[in-house]
Amino acid sequence: MTPVKKGILERLNTGEVVIGDGGFVFALEKRGYVKAGPWTPEASVTHPEAVRQLHREFLRAGSNVMQTFTFYASDDKLENRGNDLRLTGQQINEAACDLAREVASEGDALVAGGVSQTPSYLSCKSEDEVKAVFKKQMDVFVKKNVDFLIAEYFEHVEEAEWAVHVLKMSGKPVATSLCIGPDGDLNGVSPGDCAVRLVKAGARIVGVNCHFDPMTCVKTVKLMKEGVERAGLKAHYMVQPLAYHTPDCNRQGFIDLPEFPFALEPRVVTRWDVHKYAREAYDAGIRYIGGCCGFEPYHIRAVAEELAPERGFLPAASEKHGMWGSGLDMHTKPWVRARSRREYWEQLQPASGRPTCPSMSKPEGWGVTKGHADLIQHKEATSKQEMQHLLEMQKKAKANA
Amino acid sequence: MTPVKKGILERLNTGEVVIGDGGFVFALEKRGYVKAGPWTPEASVTHPEAVRQLHREFLRAGSNVMQTFTFYASDDKLENRGNDLRLTGQQINEAACDLAREVASEGDALVAGGVSQTPSYLSCKSEDEVKAVFKKQMDVFVKKNVDFLIAEYFEHVEEAEWAVHVLKMSGKPVATSLCIGPDGDLNGVSPGDCAVRLVKAGARIVGVNCHFDPMTCVKTVKLMKEGVERAGLKAHYMVQPLAYHTPDCNRQGFIDLPEFPFALEPRVVTRWDVHKYAREAYDAGIRYIGGCCGFEPYHIRAVAEELAPERGFLPAASEKHGMWGSGLDMHTKPWVRARSRREYWEQLQPASGRPTCPSMSKPEGWGVTKGHADLIQHKEATSKQEMQHLLEMQKKAKANA
Amino acid sequence: MTPVKKGILERLNTGEVVIGDGGFVFALEKRGYVKAGPWTPEASVTHPEAVRQLHREFLRAGSNVMQTFTFYASDDKLENRGNDLRLTGQQINEAACDLAREVASEGDALVAGGVSQTPSYLSCKSEDEVKAVFKKQMDVFVKKNVDFLIAEYFEHVEEAEWAVHVLKMSGKPVATSLCIGPDGDLNGVSPGDCAVRLVKAGARIVGVNCHFDPMTCVKTVKLMKEGVERAGLKAHYMVQPLAYHTPDCNRQGFIDLPEFPFALEPRVVTRWDVHKYAREAYDAGIRYIGGCCGFEPYHIRAVAEELAPERGFLPAASEKHGMWGSGLDMHTKPWVRARSRREYWEQLQPASGRPTCPSMSKPEGWGVTKGHADLIQHKEATSKQEMQHLLEMQKKAKANA
Amino acid sequence: MTPVKKGILERLNTGEVVIGDGGFVFALEKRGYVKAGPWTPEASVTHPEAVRQLHREFLRAGSNVMQTFTFYASDDKLENRGNDLRLTGQQINEAACDLAREVASEGDALVAGGVSQTPSYLSCKSEDEVKAVFKKQMDVFVKKNVDFLIAEYFEHVEEAEWAVHVLKMSGKPVATSLCIGPDGDLNGVSPGDCAVRLVKAGARIVGVNCHFDPMTCVKTVKLMKEGVERAGLKAHYMVQPLAYHTPDCNRQGFIDLPEFPFALEPRVVTRWDVHKYAREAYDAGIRYIGGCCGFEPYHIRAVAEELAPERGFLPAASEKHGMWGSGLDMHTKPWVRARSRREYWEQLQPASGRPTCPSMSKPEGWGVTKGHADLIQHKEATSKQEMQHLLEMQKKAKANA
Repeated sequence: MTPVKKGILERLNTGEVVIGDGGFVFALEKRGYVKAGPWTPEASVTHPEAVRQLHREFLRAGSNVMQTFTFYASDDKLENRGNDLRLTGQQINEAACDLAREVASEGDALVAGGVSQTPSYLSCKSEDEVKAVFKKQMDVFVKKNVDFLIAEYFEHVEEAEWAVHVLKMSGKPVATSLCIGPDGDLNGVSPGDCAVRLVKAGARIVGVNCHFDPMTCVKTVKLMKEGVERAGLKAHYMVQPLAYHTPDCNRQGFIDLPEFPFALEPRVVTRWDVHKYAREAYDAGIRYIGGCCGFEPYHIRAVAEELAPERGFLPAASEKHGMWGSGLDMHTKPWVRARSRREYWEQLQPASGRPTCPSMSKPEGWGVTKGHADLIQHKEATSKQEMQHLLEMQKKAKANA
Repeated sequence: MTPVKKGILERLNTGEVVIGDGGFVFALEKRGYVKAGPWTPEASVTHPEAVRQLHREFLRAGSNVMQTFTFYASDDKLENRGNDLRLTGQQINEAACDLAREVASEGDALVAGGVSQTPSYLSCKSEDEVKAVFKKQMDVFVKKNVDFLIAEYFEHVEEAEWAVHVLKMSGKPVATSLCIGPDGDLNGVSPGDCAVRLVKAGARIVGVNCHFDPMTCVKTVKLMKEGVERAGLKAHYMVQPLAYHTPDCNRQGFIDLPEFPFALEPRVVTRWDVHKYAREAYDAGIRYIGGCCGFEPYHIRAVAEELAPERGFLPAASEKHGMWGSGLDMHTKPWVRARSRREYWEQLQPASGRPTCPSMSKPEGWGVTKGHADLIQHKEATSKQEMQHLLEMQKKAKANA
Repeated sequence: MTPVKKGILERLNTGEVVIGDGGFVFALEKRGYVKAGPWTPEASVTHPEAVRQLHREFLRAGSNVMQTFTFYASDDKLENRGNDLRLTGQQINEAACDLAREVASEGDALVAGGVSQTPSYLSCKSEDEVKAVFKKQMDVFVKKNVDFLIAEYFEHVEEAEWAVHVLKMSGKPVATSLCIGPDGDLNGVSPGDCAVRLVKAGARIVGVNCHFDPMTCVKTVKLMKEGVERAGLKAHYMVQPLAYHTPDCNRQGFIDLPEFPFALEPRVVTRWDVHKYAREAYDAGIRYIGGCCGFEPYHIRAVAEELAPERGFLPAASEKHGMWGSGLDMHTKPWVRARSRREYWEQLQPASGRPTCPSMSKPEGWGVTKGHADLIQHKEATSKQEMQHLLEMQKKAKANA
Repeated sequence: MTPVKKGILERLNTGEVVIGDGGFVFALEKRGYVKAGPWTPEASVTHPEAVRQLHREFLRAGSNVMQTFTFYASDDKLENRGNDLRLTGQQINEAACDLAREVASEGDALVAGGVSQTPSYLSCKSEDEVKAVFKKQMDVFVKKNVDFLIAEYFEHVEEAEWAVHVLKMSGKPVATSLCIGPDGDLNGVSPGDCAVRLVKAGARIVGVNCHFDPMTCVKTVKLMKEGVERAGLKAHYMVQPLAYHTPDCNRQGFIDLPEFPFALEPRVVTRWDVHKYAREAYDAGIRYIGGCCGFEPYHIRAVAEELAPERGFLPAASEKHGMWGSGLDMHTKPWVRARSRREYWEQLQPASGRPTCPSMSKPEGWGVTKGHADLIQHKEATSKQEMQHLLEMQKKAKANA
């Protein structure tokens, strides 16, 4: 008989590190099971073996949470997803729960049912209508008896509050993640204020996921933590960032980078970047540490390896991974052997192999503002013609002098 | 009853494009099933579900060849692989054949048994001893009745010739791939001469795999083709490059780049890079087009999509992929919608998001030559002390003038 | 008879743009007359033709101010400059005044006597001692009857206040520039507070010079202006930035960049960068616009050309410069002709031609903090040995399970 | 009485290093005396003080040759230079000779009269007409009794041969420089063949100037030297490269880079790059070593400092330059002091400070070839519409299966 697993709050309350999983939609897009654009998760029904295998890889890598693959699986999203399969939201959500539970049972992982931002909110439907959408997914999670719930990927804290209101009716612990950076949500609510509102709404774990790179996400959760503590409240903290370097993002995050979503490769973080991220998150007091889009199993393994001293064990997949490159110890070439040490990989500045590409992009879209239009107009006014006119005048003035 | 599939030579003789698969050891390292350093493939026995799933993804992406996951699975390699599992080479090779056949049966793919370079050759064992190592793997492939054989990843054409001598005794078609670039093998034999020797040895398909980026590999196979044609011989051509940009490699290829093997991320090619590669390979007359380390299913799908006009169909995984980003057609933001066209992705110069990293690295190891040592010595001779001495003399000379 | 020129305040009070000059010590270092390190200006005595010629080039480029070449020409600096010529501070300061006046008389330029930060302050001498140093230089400026005075390149606002106290005793208008960025002076006094203190001390023009790139300097002066206006005070504003891109600086500015001072070339701003800077400065309400280290005559000409519509004339050196590349109009190659337009140069992202160099550096020195030392210690604690120990324990635990 | 100086051949025959000067048109463009586009040298007449000063700076930096500032000063070029000053070619060439001689007399430098490629040749005038153009400039050089002659900046070896034929009639030694790279002249004549033809025509010194970066130019002169030696001939060798990094050029050199001529700043070589160049040139057996466009006095000083051990003395301007950064020895900050050593500057990879700029550009113009046009046409043929048609067919085929 399986021993009863400790629940999510039980773990966090005793100071345990909980390792999240990585990014399903991006990983499965690359594997051929999710379409970029709609990003909907019908693969749980149509190709369960692919979803199951990805869960397993994250479990082996050290994940303590099998999050149901139910991103963008609300009925309103599925309706306009442009796919001709006639699968209901209920079918997809149920299949996702079964797959998550099946793999969670193979190790020390919990099942988390997940909801995310809805087209209904973005198209200004009423609070009741939006809440009804969340309720429908939650009913499946309750029926399938997941261990806790996550409301994630919200650009507006208001919608996240509504989600928390609904999810906490399940009686299960609720975690909430916004896809915001240090500048706050799309209405300009600061990270600290967002966090306070979510905790007051009933979330026990708050944080951010997606849209920004690991260090930016940690920085944002720090701001949330400061806000919560300033308000005299209590919470646990989670962070599940992109696996992409995004120092050049605007408030909208990586969506507005010109490389999104099909040319992000040069931005992918290395396992060594993830070591630094995991340490930074831990030092900031965050104890639920995972990843979002771009995080592959080896990235999650790097979280588990960095925090192995604190947790006391390595993940299963470390059987296939020498710490800090130690697997190169026996290489025949001395200069490759020299790479089997921590300092080498920590200090390496990896090249892109792309000499005609810049380091940073300019985000699109938000730049076309009134200021920009004025600038263009100004430029025309000071054009070459005007200059030549001025030059003529100057020459005449000289001639007369 | 399954119709009999056309054989590899039957396909190539009639001008068909044959799409290879991608890189198993690198993909499975990231998924947690292969250890970087030894790179051996015991996962076919210990975690068949992971190997099977990867085969399936490549099949869906358009691969016509399920290559047995038997890289570095010769007995001499497995002996010194530093793993405490006691699996025999025969167990691993047999399991790999079964998995490849199982998935090949799900679509229009052939099974290819694969051998690769051996520690025996590199440690200067005799021709007979090296051939015995190849023979042992071949015996499994014959027993399991694979459709054809591939000898790949050879740095020395001589060892590849020996492999061909052995493999052709099976009576099955033999393909051979060297891991060389335009400068030829590690003994300095040119690509053209290498190809001629392999064709004379009995290889029906020749080309390169691994070690260099796609365009460099195509260039190398072109040189092979020119050599074969100049010699009045005939062959088919194959290319299975890295999915990494490596303009800064020396003759040893990506092994000597400082990022190998744990920080190659910024070099990963995009799907659009693969489109250009597939077109270039096709235009060069190469008809067996696949990938090696770093090639993931979505890269292989890009080969299949680029060559869909020639082949007359798209792969199964294109159900989840709009051509040239067309899946973004319905995006709510106009500037993201504007990315749903070919020109956008073809012209994009993706940023690395890493402002402290260079574009190119200096390969390690080969640089420490006598010339370099002399240079260092010279520098000392012209050091500051000497210069100050000279300056003194100059001042004195002036004072006397 | 020469008409009496309008004074500096007369010009600024009526809204005129006053164009400063560029960077003498850096330009003359490259021409062979100033030594990097000491940076002292004895060339006014030893090679007056070189100093005179540089003044002339700036005058032709549009400068309205010939600043005496007296940077680091205080007696306390000259004493420890490591040069065996026995020139007194008085000789150097007088020669510099004569050269500036000679060239200023050739056009519409004023002469400004300049003092800068002193070793006396940095070595904690008393207020009286520091003021005596400034007084000695000022006495020369009064004797030579310069038009106004500039106290510039101060890292500590306190020392700048002392300089203003001294200089205003001359009865001439005093301008003051700190070498600070948006983070304020080295004691952490904000730009706004610095500006208020300087205005209260008696400076009529306040701003920044050196240490940061053009846009950063404009941003800093904006903060100064906000501070002054918030305090209900009045002042004119000046900006004389580096001609180097320095987005990667810490508070100390370009001194701490690893390229300082002998490898800054790839950072040099183009004339088109200067156009943007001049416009930005003008739009921010700054009316005294010049340059510091790295600014060559063609950079100053770009300021004058960008602001030609506002000023109503072009500088003399524009006879040798087509606006926005129009001099290429007649080029024989059509693609070079296509570069003779504003859009081309405004949008160009110039390549560095250095594929092994990064875009950004990490500033030196300030990074070696306690936090850094702790991190290094932590790394040792989580070393490979410990991990292997953990792995052993994990294996045992599994074996017992 | 001035001792008679050794002639150019006397110096080279005894193995002396002769240091050339830098790039006048680019340096004077930045100082405001030359117009980019026409690039003509009327400043010798209109602003002699500026030309004299630049000569002096190069002399101080170590130049042994004061080359007359007569680039593009042939009558046919001056006629269509778009300048309304009515100066004759004779006036300009004579003034240039006088300035060069005046400064040469201040030190150990020779005067070289220079001619360059002509519009007459490029517009297909006859050999006699082209030679007449050269003759006219030569007559001035003979009248002014320069020490030797240089024919430089030829893109076609044929025109250079004609120039040599004319110049050797003066009885003075003739040096000839082509502006070619390793691919040879614009007609495809290899560097080796070019050099042989020039030596046979009568040039005593052959080499290259302009158009490519230092290392590429040295490589080209090596090819010339090999050609000359293979032909059993004898010559001296000269190299005067750009001060820009141009690894991304096509055969036309930096003219076709998108940054030419107004945004080349990030490509400027550092003094340390010049040390490496000077050493490489010396080791290749080249003994006339100077610079062309972009070379400023401090670059020439770096040539003189690198070769000081061989020459036995430092140039005058080294009084203002510590070897290898030694002037920073006394800096107050320890991390800046740490930059006062050779290894630091040799190993530094300087950042561009421009994160949105790439490392390499794509040359313009030559890329628009037939192959490119075909590619564009092909792309249209494989457009999205066709793909969707194919997908339909595939679906039908599946439905029928």
